[in-house]
Amino acid sequence: MFQSFDDVSDPTRGAGRVSELREWMTANDLDGFLVPRSDEHQGEYVAARSERLAWLTGFTGSAGAALILRERAILFVDGRYTLQARHQVDTEVFTIESLVTNPPPEWLKENAARGWRIGFDPWLSTIEDARRLRQALDSRDAELVSVERNPIDALWSDQPDAPLQPIEIQPIEFAGELTKDKLSRLAADIAKHRATHTVLTDPSSLAWTFNIRGKDVPHTPLALGFAVLAAEGAPKIYIDERKLPIKSKAYLTQIADLREPGELESDLAALAQSGAAIALDPHLAAERLRVLVLDNGGKVVEAPDPARVPRATKNAAEIAGTRAAHRRDGAAMAKMLCWLDRQQPGTIDEIAAVEKLEEFRRTTGDETQMPLRDVSFSTISGAGPNGAIIHYRVSRATSRKLGDGELFLLDSGGQYQDGTTDITRTVPVGTPTEEMCERYTLVLKGMIRISMLRFPPGTRGSDIDVLARTALWEHGLDYAHGTGHGVGSFLSVHEGPQRIAKTGMHRLLTGMILSNEPGYYKEGQYGIRLENLILVTPEQEVEGGDIAMHGFETLTLAPFDKRMLKTEWLTRPEIHWLDEYHARVLREIGPMLDGETLAWLEQATAPLPKDIKA
Amino acid sequence: MFQSFDDVSDPTRGAGRVSELREWMTANDLDGFLVPRSDEHQGEYVAARSERLAWLTGFTGSAGAALILRERAILFVDGRYTLQARHQVDTEVFTIESLVTNPPPEWLKENAARGWRIGFDPWLSTIEDARRLRQALDSRDAELVSVERNPIDALWSDQPDAPLQPIEIQPIEFAGELTKDKLSRLAADIAKHRATHTVLTDPSSLAWTFNIRGKDVPHTPLALGFAVLAAEGAPKIYIDERKLPIKSKAYLTQIADLREPGELESDLAALAQSGAAIALDPHLAAERLRVLVLDNGGKVVEAPDPARVPRATKNAAEIAGTRAAHRRDGAAMAKMLCWLDRQQPGTIDEIAAVEKLEEFRRTTGDETQMPLRDVSFSTISGAGPNGAIIHYRVSRATSRKLGDGELFLLDSGGQYQDGTTDITRTVPVGTPTEEMCERYTLVLKGMIRISMLRFPPGTRGSDIDVLARTALWEHGLDYAHGTGHGVGSFLSVHEGPQRIAKTGMHRLLTGMILSNEPGYYKEGQYGIRLENLILVTPEQEVEGGDIAMHGFETLTLAPFDKRMLKTEWLTRPEIHWLDEYHARVLREIGPMLDGETLAWLEQATAPLPKDIKA
Repeated sequence: MFQSFDDVSDPTRGAGRVSELREWMTANDLDGFLVPRSDEHQGEYVAARSERLAWLTGFTGSAGAALILRERAILFVDGRYTLQARHQVDTEVFTIESLVTNPPPEWLKENAARGWRIGFDPWLSTIEDARRLRQALDSRDAELVSVERNPIDALWSDQPDAPLQPIEIQPIEFAGELTKDKLSRLAADIAKHRATHTVLTDPSSLAWTFNIRGKDVPHTPLALGFAVLAAEGAPKIYIDERKLPIKSKAYLTQIADLREPGELESDLAALAQSGAAIALDPHLAAERLRVLVLDNGGKVVEAPDPARVPRATKNAAEIAGTRAAHRRDGAAMAKMLCWLDRQQPGTIDEIAAVEKLEEFRRTTGDETQMPLRDVSFSTISGAGPNGAIIHYRVSRATSRKLGDGELFLLDSGGQYQDGTTDITRTVPVGTPTEEMCERYTLVLKGMIRISMLRFPPGTRGSDIDVLARTALWEHGLDYAHGTGHGVGSFLSVHEGPQRIAKTGMHRLLTGMILSNEPGYYKEGQYGIRLENLILVTPEQEVEGGDIAMHGFETLTLAPFDKRMLKTEWLTRPEIHWLDEYHARVLREIGPMLDGETLAWLEQATAPLPKDIKA
Repeated sequence: MFQSFDDVSDPTRGAGRVSELREWMTANDLDGFLVPRSDEHQGEYVAARSERLAWLTGFTGSAGAALILRERAILFVDGRYTLQARHQVDTEVFTIESLVTNPPPEWLKENAARGWRIGFDPWLSTIEDARRLRQALDSRDAELVSVERNPIDALWSDQPDAPLQPIEIQPIEFAGELTKDKLSRLAADIAKHRATHTVLTDPSSLAWTFNIRGKDVPHTPLALGFAVLAAEGAPKIYIDERKLPIKSKAYLTQIADLREPGELESDLAALAQSGAAIALDPHLAAERLRVLVLDNGGKVVEAPDPARVPRATKNAAEIAGTRAAHRRDGAAMAKMLCWLDRQQPGTIDEIAAVEKLEEFRRTTGDETQMPLRDVSFSTISGAGPNGAIIHYRVSRATSRKLGDGELFLLDSGGQYQDGTTDITRTVPVGTPTEEMCERYTLVLKGMIRISMLRFPPGTRGSDIDVLARTALWEHGLDYAHGTGHGVGSFLSVHEGPQRIAKTGMHRLLTGMILSNEPGYYKEGQYGIRLENLILVTPEQEVEGGDIAMHGFETLTLAPFDKRMLKTEWLTRPEIHWLDEYHARVLREIGPMLDGETLAWLEQATAPLPKDIKA
C-alpha cells in the first residue's frame, strides 16, 4: 500500500515539547518563535524530517503554522483542518486560529506587545511571508529575529535524516521537451526580468526543468534540491549525489554542473559578490536566500519562478500522456464503482474501499504496462458523516462501515509515468434521501457548467469559480473550498499557478490542467463532491462570433451515479452534456473492461430518460 | 439644458502648448512632465480650471494622462477612449498608449533612460500613483521630481477660477443619518487604524459626512474641499467661505471648525509637528499630503477613506429616496420610450433625443415636486455605429439621425435630491436584423442572471461579473467593460468601492447600489447596452438552505423592448423574471402616466407569449 492508516498524531506530547521550546526561547531572549508547516521548498508535501509542526503540536495537516509565545501557543489552520486540529492537538496547550482570516502577521499586528522579539527560521518562510511578518511587528514596535539554526532540529532527538531516494529520468516521450530547450526558455525569462540568474527552489520546477523525478516526499515524484539557472551559461544543480544512480548522473552531468546541497549558500554568496542580479520568487523562495544575496552585495529581482507557467501549460506529449493515464485510471474507477455496487450495505469499511481501489489501480496499471507509481495523495474515503470532512484521512481509529442509506465519497488519484490523476465520485449506499439527491444534482449542475464553458483569452480562474456555485446558492447552499486546483504531469496533484477559486488570479492558458470539483457538505451527516480533471483547449472560432474562445476538454472518464439525479432539475444542455460524456466514457474505457464490469458500465453510461421538461 | 453639444476639444493647440511646456522643462532641468487628468480630489469630474489635460492635449475623456518628454509626447487613455482620443488630439504630436496595460509607470519602467528627471505635481497624483512612478523610475536609475507649482497653471493664461457654487444642506429626510452620528462612526474607524486624524480628500466623502451638496463640478453635486477628522474632537472643514449661504454656514459652524482652503497645509503641518498619526487613503489622497505630514515629523497611516463603505451602504432613508427617484425617472423614461416609438425612422437625431429626454425628466420632476437637479452624466445617445462607442458623447458635429433599421442606445440618468439614477435602454428604429435581436437577447440574459442571483455574504463584485457574460461567450461574443459600477445617493453616479467587474474586489454589502449593464458592441455598426440599477438586499434565509443569502432588488423601472427578444432563447426562470419585472413596472409607474403613454406602457409590459419551450 502507498498509504497508511495509522494514527500518526499524538496530542499528548505537545505540552512537553512546547515547554522545551520555551526554555530555548528564554535562553535566546525571544518572546516567541514561529513554526510553519513548510520546508525549505515550500511544497505541500514535506519529508519526514521536515514535519516540525507535527512533531511540536501533533497536527498533521498539509498547511498551518504554530506561534509559540511565552504564555500562549497558537496553532493556525485553514477551514479544511479546523475539526482535525481540535482532535490532534492538546487544546489546553494550543489555541486554534484561522490561517486565512487571522494568519500570524494579522494576529501579531493586533496582539504583539511593544518590544517583542519573535524568532523565525529564514529557510522556512518565503520572502513575502517574512515581509508581512516584519511589517506587522514593525507596526507594533516589535522585532522579527532570524535564527541561525532551527531549535526544533536540536530538540527533536530522533528527527529522521534527509531522504535519499533515487532520481530517475523522465523520458522525452512523456516530457515532450528537452531540458536544453526548456533552459533556453527559462534563460529568456531571466533576461526579461533584467536578472542574471535565478534560483529554482520549488522541486516541481527542478523536476520539470531537468526532466527528472524522485521519491523524496510522499505521493509526489519530487527530488528535493535546488538549481541556479543563468541568463547565459550552464545551470548548477544542488542535490545529494547519493540520490543519483549512474544513468541519472551521466544524464545530468551533460546539462548541468552538479553541486552538493551544502555548496548552494557559498555559490550564491560568490555570485552576489560578483554583482549578479538574482531573480527570486517572493512567494516561493526562502527569505534566507534574499538576505544572503543582499548581504553579499548582489541584487535581488523579485519575479515569479520562470518554470511555473511553462510547467503548467502542457505540451502535446504531456497531454497525450495524461489522456492515456485517464483512460487507464477510468477503467480502474469503473471496476471500483462496479465492485462497490455489488457490496451489501454495512459490509465493507472505508479502509477496505481504499485498499480495493489501490488494487484496481495496480492491476489495471500492470495490465496496460504502465504501473501505478504511487497514489497522487492519500485517498479520501468518507462514509456518512466522514464524507463531510473535506480533507478527511481515514485511519484505523476512524474507519466507518459504509452503512445503509449513507453516501460514500471517494476522492483519489494515481501517479503514472505518463500522468497524474485526481477523481472524486460520490455514491449512495442503499437508498439515498430526497435531500441527498437534490444536493447531488445541484453539485453536478455546477460541475457541468464549468465543463461546458467557453471563455475568452485573459479569463482567470477567479472569474469563473462562481459558475460552479450558483445552482447551490439558489437553494441557500455553498461549499467552503475552491472549485479547482492545477494538476501536474507525473508531478504535483496540486500545482500552480492555475486555480479555479476566488484566489485564482492567473489567466487560464491553453494546456493547463485543472480539477473541477464542486461539493456540498452537511456536517455530521454526509458529503458530496464530484470531480473531473479538465484541460484548457486552444482558442477556437465560434460560428458567427467575434472572439476565438477557449473551452475545457474533460480528461477524467468515469460515470456519475444516475440514481442520485433529479433529472427534471437539469436543463436540456446539461442533460445533453451528461449523455455525451457517458457515451464517451463507454467508448474510451469500455474496451479495457469485460464481463460483469463492462455490463455494469453499459448500464451506468446509458442515456438519461428522454421525456424531460426542463 | 444641463448638457452641451459643443465640440469642446481643439486638436490644433496641442503642438504649441507642448512646446511651451518643453521650454519650461528645459528651464527646470526636467526630461519629462506628467499631466494627469485628475485634480486635487481625484474625482471623475473636475472643475473647468482643472482640465489641464484637455487644455494641453485636446482630449476630454474622464480618465487619462499625458507624459511630455523632450522628444516625445504620449497620451495614455483606456479602451473606452481610444477612438475618441485619436479624433481629439494631434497624432503628429501625441502617441496614444493604453492606460490599462501600459500606464505611465509601466511605460517608464520599459523606456526611461538612466538619469532622467521626470516632474510631477504632487497634488495631482495619489500616494499610490507616486509610489509606482517612483519605483518605476528607481528601477531605471531615474528620478521622480516633485514641482512646487504646476507649470500648466502658469502657461494657461485664461485658466478659469476655482468654482464658487453655493453649498446646500442635504435634509435629514434624505440623508437619513445626522452628521454627528456619522462622525462618531468615522472616529471609531480612525481609532481602529491607530491613527489620531484623517483627511477626507474625496468630495463625495465630504458631502456624505457633512450632509452637504454643492455644484462645483458638472453633473455631480459636490462641493470641492477637504476635511480633517479626529479620533477625538471636532472636525475641521476647508472650503471657501464664499460658497456658504448663511443657512449652510450656520449649520456647518455647529458641527465643525470652518477653515479656509489655504490653511489646510499649515494646519496639517502643525498637527504633524505635534506627533499626530494621520490616516491617508493611498488610492485617494494626494502625494503632497503624505510628504507634508512626514516632513513635519508626523506619522502617516495608510488606510481606506473611512467614509467610503458607510457612504456606499445606504440607509433606510436613502433607499426610500432612491426608490422614489427611480419611480419618477421610470415615468420619464416611459414617456421617452413611447415618444421614440412614435417617431418615423430618419426624422429625429441624437441631440433631439437628448433634449426630449431632459424635457421629460424636468416635467416629471416638476409634476412630482422633486425637480431634476442635473443629469447624472452627459447622456449617451448613440444611433447606429455611434452606439458602438461605449462612452460616446454626442456633439453637433457627430449627431446622427436615428435611421431605419438601426439600433438606438440611450444611456442617461438624473440627479434628484432623493437619489441618483442611471438607466440604459436600446431600441430598434424600424425593423432590426435577426443578428441584432439575437445579441440583444444574449445581453438581456446576462442582465437577468445578475438580477435573479442569490449570493452568500462575502461575495465580491469580481466573483459574479462572469454571470452577465456567459450567454455571450457561448456565441463567441463579449463586451469590453465591467458589468456594473457603484452609484451614490444624490451623489456620484460612479461611486466606489462596490463594482461588478474583474477589478471589483470589495464585498457586496447590504444597501450598496450598483448598475447592472452588460452590452454588446459591433464597431461601425451598432451597440446594445441594457442597464438597471440594483440594490443589495439583506441576507435572507432560503427554505431548506444552510446559508442566509443576499440578493438584488431592481431599482430601475422601465420596460425592455420585447420586439428585440428571441423568446425561445430565454429559460423559463428568465421569462418569469421578465414578466414579473414588467408587471411591477406597470404597477409602480403606471399611476404616474395617462392617456397614450399609459396605453403604450400597458402594451410594452404585457407578458410574453406562453407557448415557449425553453
